[in-house]
Amino acid sequence: MLSRHIASKLRGLETPFYLYDTALLRQTLESVVSEAGKFGYKVHYAIKANYDDHLLAIIREYGLGIDCASGNELRKAVEAGFAPEGIVYAGVGKRDKELRYAIEQGIMAINCESIEELEVVNALSSEAGRTTDVALRINPDIDPRTNHCIDTGQADSKFGISYEEVLEHAERIKALDHLNIVGVHLHIGSQIRELHVFENMCRKVNVIVANLERLGFTFRFVDVGGGLGVNYDVPENEPIPNFASLFSIVHNHLYVGDKEVHFEFGRSIVAECGELITRVLFNKTTATGRKLVIVDASMTELIRPALYGSYHNIENITSEEEAFDKYTVVGTACESTDVFDENVGLRKTRRGDLLSIKSAGAYGMSMASRYNLHDLPGAVYSDEL
Amino acid sequence: MLSRHIASKLRGLETPFYLYDTALLRQTLESVVSEAGKFGYKVHYAIKANYDDHLLAIIREYGLGIDCASGNELRKAVEAGFAPEGIVYAGVGKRDKELRYAIEQGIMAINCESIEELEVVNALSSEAGRTTDVALRINPDIDPRTNHCIDTGQADSKFGISYEEVLEHAERIKALDHLNIVGVHLHIGSQIRELHVFENMCRKVNVIVANLERLGFTFRFVDVGGGLGVNYDVPENEPIPNFASLFSIVHNHLYVGDKEVHFEFGRSIVAECGELITRVLFNKTTATGRKLVIVDASMTELIRPALYGSYHNIENITSEEEAFDKYTVVGTACESTDVFDENVGLRKTRRGDLLSIKSAGAYGMSMASRYNLHDLPGAVYSDEL
Repeated sequence: MLSRHIASKLRGLETPFYLYDTALLRQTLESVVSEAGKFGYKVHYAIKANYDDHLLAIIREYGLGIDCASGNELRKAVEAGFAPEGIVYAGVGKRDKELRYAIEQGIMAINCESIEELEVVNALSSEAGRTTDVALRINPDIDPRTNHCIDTGQADSKFGISYEEVLEHAERIKALDHLNIVGVHLHIGSQIRELHVFENMCRKVNVIVANLERLGFTFRFVDVGGGLGVNYDVPENEPIPNFASLFSIVHNHLYVGDKEVHFEFGRSIVAECGELITRVLFNKTTATGRKLVIVDASMTELIRPALYGSYHNIENITSEEEAFDKYTVVGTACESTDVFDENVGLRKTRRGDLLSIKSAGAYGMSMASRYNLHDLPGAVYSDEL
Repeated sequence: MLSRHIASKLRGLETPFYLYDTALLRQTLESVVSEAGKFGYKVHYAIKANYDDHLLAIIREYGLGIDCASGNELRKAVEAGFAPEGIVYAGVGKRDKELRYAIEQGIMAINCESIEELEVVNALSSEAGRTTDVALRINPDIDPRTNHCIDTGQADSKFGISYEEVLEHAERIKALDHLNIVGVHLHIGSQIRELHVFENMCRKVNVIVANLERLGFTFRFVDVGGGLGVNYDVPENEPIPNFASLFSIVHNHLYVGDKEVHFEFGRSIVAECGELITRVLFNKTTATGRKLVIVDASMTELIRPALYGSYHNIENITSEEEAFDKYTVVGTACESTDVFDENVGLRKTRRGDLLSIKSAGAYGMSMASRYNLHDLPGAVYSDEL
């Protein structure tokens, strides 16, 4: 962890801020690019995880495409210098003005998530005098009775077109003459640590692609999404996620002929290179004897613990005490839910100490708010220190 | 509900946006001010609920004080023209620069939430050559064995100084010679709909104040916080919360002599005057048969359903269909949790219809984020239409 090694440099900086280890980001990108290269896989970066300009510039150097979830994310990617033909745009709810911008930019594909959206993209493309490349984003849950795929639980989610609906409306979709259906897109979830789940995903994709091809669709690419988890528990043990294992599973279980295979990685690329550095403001003990450490960060900088109950490892990076104690680390926001973690083992902690809340590079800054009128947190990059 | 009556005026506006019924806000303020006046109670507005400039200007006309939760909120209140001597500043974690600003402004009181904070405020006041008015924010849970107050469950929270700690450190606190301890502050919770809870609160306050006075503290005011709930279920039934009942309970159960009694209301003042207006982008049906309505708002404009599972009543304000159907209303964010509500009864709903997500004036805009790089929502005021 970077912050522990450079704690003395961080002491004088205004807190809280995100600290990014750009060397680790580069190592991670090198890993994903070289491992993907072994199989000819294409990798997109899911910009929603973190759209920091400095990080985007580094990611661009490694030749990744971009996966966007809004018109503004698309604009950000274009402005950061990513080539439109390497950008895909997914999302359940796209506004007309966002779709018009995507059509105009001629991106790799708009990943459409409903029949109605396909019709709207067709109409807007017609208006613009263009034919737009789109991918069908399929909800990967398939009726187990017909397809021998037994995982369920996502069929009811808001994402993607239901597989049945595509089958039912196949002719209507194929008749949309301002669309080129160039790809199929699936995404099974996020922060997946048990890699065998991806075997099931491959089996589903095989069935979906084969069935859609039988209906007369042809695809240039299959985008199998992302979802590779990171090690929030002990990030030092696994600073770079195991891309090689995932690619190997997909290589062994995905049968889609010579189509391009695309992946979208957000968390697995940027989570571990970021830490939220925060200063201890006060200590106090509750009536029940619980020791509280009140830090100057809050759910406004990092909402994952409050929103999802997510765990982030926390370390006191400046205390030189030998003894450890158990603390509840709470933020400044006027909300009971603004607790980073309970029963955290920290070196004896005092006012002024700096804590690192680790693995915070993904869905940290990008989900920040100004609740309680907090300033948005700044960023410090290891290559600028 | 305002939006239903002016739906035709709203059709052409860019969505999503907050619609504020300023006439309802004024009626609410008239109610709280006139009811408080009957008992000589002082009312503060908890600015964290909504810091919109237009709303603040109206609230200021009615002579309310301000309750702040950060240095930036304090600055906002001062810049909006609220007199510093009517502003209190609470919050578990205050930074030195925030405390210095509060000390310099000479506000009504800094509500201190730990012994360490009292010592820091004392030291910073000394540095500034001033004596600062502070209130002790007490965690209202009291050991039932000693005080005959049987409610528990909050003693472990991050808010306030534990009562026991004040007792233990009373002499140390009184010796802080750059502080005037002018008040005592308690807050028992939020969105309280069962008013008898406030009777218990009064009994606790009576005990706490009496015991602290026996230790030699003297208080000019007692701030009993806020917490009055609003009717999220059927807002039309109760557009203005029942301030009169709360004040009557406090009048009958609080025994603190001739001290000023202060209240802090956020949600109960602004929740019902605000609606989030959003447009339907797409309809689709999941593989399980669930009908989804995808709207152009999301958890980035209103995070309460995703963060707390909060209920907001939703209505289609433009559909002229007689028939109703059940829908799941989901937002545009790339998050499974971004669902406004399930099984919502709406008039038959189509692309382009406007929905109102009601009672969204509090903790809506103030908790907004730019996740997915969404633009922050705009605001429309009934007195400017």
